[in-house]
Amino acid sequence: MEYQILPNITSPHDLDGLSREQLLTLAAEIREALTGIVEERPAHFASNLGVVELCIALHLVFNFEEDRLIWDTGHQIYPHKLVTGRFHEFQTIRQRGGLMGYPNPAESPYDLFVTGHAGSSVSTVLGLKAGDDLLGETGRKSVAVIGDGALPSGIVFEAMNNAAELKKDLLVILNDNKMGICPRVGGLAQYLDRARTAPFYNGLKKDISWLLNQIPVVGESVESVLGHAKEAAKTFLHGGMLFEEMGFRYIGPVDGHDLTGLIDSLKMVKEVKGPVLLHVLTEKGHGFEPACADPVGFHTPSPFERNAEGEIVSMKKGSSKAYTEVMSDAIHRSMSEDPKVAVLTAAMCAGNKLEKVRAEFPERFFDTGICEGHAVAFAGGMAKAGMKPIVDIYSTFLQRSFDQIFQEVALQNLPVIFTLDRAGLCGPDGPTHHGIFDHAYMRVFPNMTVMAPGDENDVAPMLDFALLHDGPTSIRYPKANVESVERDSVPIEHGKAEVYSEGTDGTFVACGVMFPRCVAAAERLREEGVQVGVINARFIKPIDIETIGRALDETGFVITAEENTSSGGFGSAVLEAANARGHRTDHLRILSLPDEFVEHGDRDELLASCGLDVDGLAATAHSLADRGTLQTS
Amino acid sequence: MEYQILPNITSPHDLDGLSREQLLTLAAEIREALTGIVEERPAHFASNLGVVELCIALHLVFNFEEDRLIWDTGHQIYPHKLVTGRFHEFQTIRQRGGLMGYPNPAESPYDLFVTGHAGSSVSTVLGLKAGDDLLGETGRKSVAVIGDGALPSGIVFEAMNNAAELKKDLLVILNDNKMGICPRVGGLAQYLDRARTAPFYNGLKKDISWLLNQIPVVGESVESVLGHAKEAAKTFLHGGMLFEEMGFRYIGPVDGHDLTGLIDSLKMVKEVKGPVLLHVLTEKGHGFEPACADPVGFHTPSPFERNAEGEIVSMKKGSSKAYTEVMSDAIHRSMSEDPKVAVLTAAMCAGNKLEKVRAEFPERFFDTGICEGHAVAFAGGMAKAGMKPIVDIYSTFLQRSFDQIFQEVALQNLPVIFTLDRAGLCGPDGPTHHGIFDHAYMRVFPNMTVMAPGDENDVAPMLDFALLHDGPTSIRYPKANVESVERDSVPIEHGKAEVYSEGTDGTFVACGVMFPRCVAAAERLREEGVQVGVINARFIKPIDIETIGRALDETGFVITAEENTSSGGFGSAVLEAANARGHRTDHLRILSLPDEFVEHGDRDELLASCGLDVDGLAATAHSLADRGTLQTS
Repeated sequence: MEYQILPNITSPHDLDGLSREQLLTLAAEIREALTGIVEERPAHFASNLGVVELCIALHLVFNFEEDRLIWDTGHQIYPHKLVTGRFHEFQTIRQRGGLMGYPNPAESPYDLFVTGHAGSSVSTVLGLKAGDDLLGETGRKSVAVIGDGALPSGIVFEAMNNAAELKKDLLVILNDNKMGICPRVGGLAQYLDRARTAPFYNGLKKDISWLLNQIPVVGESVESVLGHAKEAAKTFLHGGMLFEEMGFRYIGPVDGHDLTGLIDSLKMVKEVKGPVLLHVLTEKGHGFEPACADPVGFHTPSPFERNAEGEIVSMKKGSSKAYTEVMSDAIHRSMSEDPKVAVLTAAMCAGNKLEKVRAEFPERFFDTGICEGHAVAFAGGMAKAGMKPIVDIYSTFLQRSFDQIFQEVALQNLPVIFTLDRAGLCGPDGPTHHGIFDHAYMRVFPNMTVMAPGDENDVAPMLDFALLHDGPTSIRYPKANVESVERDSVPIEHGKAEVYSEGTDGTFVACGVMFPRCVAAAERLREEGVQVGVINARFIKPIDIETIGRALDETGFVITAEENTSSGGFGSAVLEAANARGHRTDHLRILSLPDEFVEHGDRDELLASCGLDVDGLAATAHSLADRGTLQTS
Repeated sequence: MEYQILPNITSPHDLDGLSREQLLTLAAEIREALTGIVEERPAHFASNLGVVELCIALHLVFNFEEDRLIWDTGHQIYPHKLVTGRFHEFQTIRQRGGLMGYPNPAESPYDLFVTGHAGSSVSTVLGLKAGDDLLGETGRKSVAVIGDGALPSGIVFEAMNNAAELKKDLLVILNDNKMGICPRVGGLAQYLDRARTAPFYNGLKKDISWLLNQIPVVGESVESVLGHAKEAAKTFLHGGMLFEEMGFRYIGPVDGHDLTGLIDSLKMVKEVKGPVLLHVLTEKGHGFEPACADPVGFHTPSPFERNAEGEIVSMKKGSSKAYTEVMSDAIHRSMSEDPKVAVLTAAMCAGNKLEKVRAEFPERFFDTGICEGHAVAFAGGMAKAGMKPIVDIYSTFLQRSFDQIFQEVALQNLPVIFTLDRAGLCGPDGPTHHGIFDHAYMRVFPNMTVMAPGDENDVAPMLDFALLHDGPTSIRYPKANVESVERDSVPIEHGKAEVYSEGTDGTFVACGVMFPRCVAAAERLREEGVQVGVINARFIKPIDIETIGRALDETGFVITAEENTSSGGFGSAVLEAANARGHRTDHLRILSLPDEFVEHGDRDELLASCGLDVDGLAATAHSLADRGTLQTS
């Protein structure tokens, strides 16, 4: 396909002069650009295909140099990036140093917030509007585009409740594609299904009055009923009662792929006073048949090839096993063996590879939607009843349950198991998705046992340990293919590290999947004449200070390695315990992620840049060994 | 008043034999017991007065040895404690070693969860019900009692959305007293106001059908309208459409002080299948006139005296100034001086003493209700627009915004100021209200500056500093009367500690309000011949490692003192920085709260038990000084 229009779009102002036909060509070109990306590497796809017309219409009707636009969750930002002048860099998206796969203010003034976690857009645009109004910039419009998958997230309800009271001019566009990453769930989903089929409603009471005036009045009793019915009649005119009851004006549903209709609708709602919800129906994957047919599979598809007819002829599938699969297999096995085991996910059935569990144990599989706080409190209740719930949520999203981990689990000392997928650097999704705080945020809680498997072999035994442990536990592992260190693995014991090898010059204390790297570094060092032992820490809390303390006392240096930020992380826990027990730590070096938001890019590349690859580990060991030699001499 | 019935209630089963008259006497005796407590010391009062009949009715209709009951937020648990056999210990409530002022499973099997943070009850009872059903205990009923103040909390919406899908038999009782601690806010509040005045509705469609059949059908057009109107008619029959749209059956509103009516309603809803919301109207303070007239003042009133007629004749008011007031004065002054400063609270206008700010700057005062996550994201939006928002939330409740502090503030590096009231041990409210994790959970975030004033004199300058700082900041202070250390205070400078005094034997590094204690301990030690210097750390992040490092290098020992748990706290930050800079730490002792949930009780008493009083600080210094002597000799 030859691009005609897209390369010339340097800003949304360039859309103004385009004819309807040119705009439709532009839409097709945007879809081609999207497809071009996913032919090369995994990227968000189906959700972006679904908002092409909406994005064009928004930039035609509003001026987002002045007006405010937040794309909730943010992975549907690609068309927006293309119409705000980033076509020529577009091929770099999700690569280190390239465009971010989410909104990024550092790239463009049209991106206001880095988003990635769902649901906060309504709060943010309300804040922007309140701020603009207080600063006298009352003419600026505020728009949030939020998917139906993010809608049940509690913060959306909190924000709508507040917006209704403040009566701010606010436009919330509900991008309803009937999907989160997985099919949407919950009472609200059923509600939206009803709303989809209702006729268009523009939220103006005069229309109801008009309709009611068509009804002949035939007597007192009817009259009194119909008097009340003016309000009631809303119900059969539209499906937006829920939003209207909450204080929003509901308008819709409108076809999200009818560009002209969308533009008209946006022009109308732009002038409405007070908070408005515009219900836009879109199709996830629109314009690319395979994606429409399988929107879950094409959320972030594997790279594929097309033939001349545009049909997909092959798809590159990863052959290696990922930690996610090893854990989901272990979960599946534990559920097969023990009817008390249940699993909860927050809209990540596919991401957590729980499809098999869902299919085989539907009554013990709970998908709460993007409601992590509820999922954890729900698990607390189940544990109290006597079940063994596993909360399977990405490290970064579990942050949303911090308070429920505190109150509903740790404070009650209930045996809830947290499996934290995507812990550490997640790679191309970048800072909103890196799970780099969980060592710190899990270990603050009394009663909590915090674990990280050293390699594939630790995963299932750790889950087995957690299922037997009388108290809350967490297990974190990365978005990465598994590695395996050959050894006679010792069983998992509470608070016990595994000594893989001894060394006189120094010791690596490997936290989680730093273990195979440390083993490789130690092997290389041994060849170079430096004898470095390796400890697979396994437990972040309680720390095995006996084992680590022995290394501190008996070897020339100790290096702790972890895929977490330095503040309050694993190394910090070692320092605390060593200090309390009186071990020297002047020869201890903490290797961790830096105290900054790490960019997006290939995980291994990013880890190398933090000194957490084999080269970096070995180099640090060398520098400490040399220092030791100098000190001894 | 002579107690006749209450002393003999050893379990809820004792209610069964009581006549209606005796039950009313019991209600009066419960109110007398409640009043007896608050004559002695501050305790939750008005909310408890409001649920006396509801509590009796619940225990009459259900059997909570089997059935499940969660009191959301939990401070309205007192009548429940009295009817579950805790009358004779009741005078000990909120005192160290006595009954907890919240539900406590350690006290009674009738208390299932320690609650204190609002909104999670619906999730928890859904989890209990799901667990019971999976374990074959399908006969157990599950009941949550939640106030209208907690209702807007996002997790409630998340849980209702999930419950509607799971179609579990679940009873949510909306205890609607038109109040949180402060008057309720938000669109939902207005919605509930409408619902209060609607006629009783029991959620059964047959009633609507009956009513519609009274309407004569006079032609095609009417017929078709009325066909749809069967659903629509709900609206004018009741006010519960919002809940019905979400998939709950709504029943109510019912009078929460009509014991007979309540019992009938509960018997009815007990048999209803699926999720039900029973809307109960109560009066906060019911049965005690002054509390009805001023429910905010009587939420946790100061101790008062009554005369023979039962009228309040005097109230003990604290004369000392609390940190809360010093901060609210500073906020008020900053808002007077700078029109860009705004303040946000989450239903704690009274607790944060923001009434004056609300009265004088209503357009820059935002009370989001119990929606901490929204409040922080909202502040992020305001900051992006150019305002200087101050988020004024208790340390323990700010935990609920962990993810928004991450994404909407720290990741965007926006100048939002967090003022964390009730940081450290809050005293008689106990573990749900202690703010003992914030050193750890705030300092994990890149870009965040974390502060704690050493005494009264630091508070306003720290806020001034924060208002000028280009990035997010936090300031934490306790629920305590201010103390003041006389000195020529040095100005607040980013990442700079204040050296109060030098000592050769050792140094106290005081974090936050440990400062005056450390000064007092150092004075006592000086009299005893031990020369200990004192550093007022001021910054938890960035740590002033130059100043603290000098103390580590040059004095015999260093003691860090903080009112936070040990895991990842201030002492841990000192260890990290010292390790990175190569300072020795073998003579460093960290004094902090232990890694456990600290009970309720008098704050000073609790701090003493943790070694954080002057005696404890001095004793630790002595032990280190002696060790130093031994090592030297």
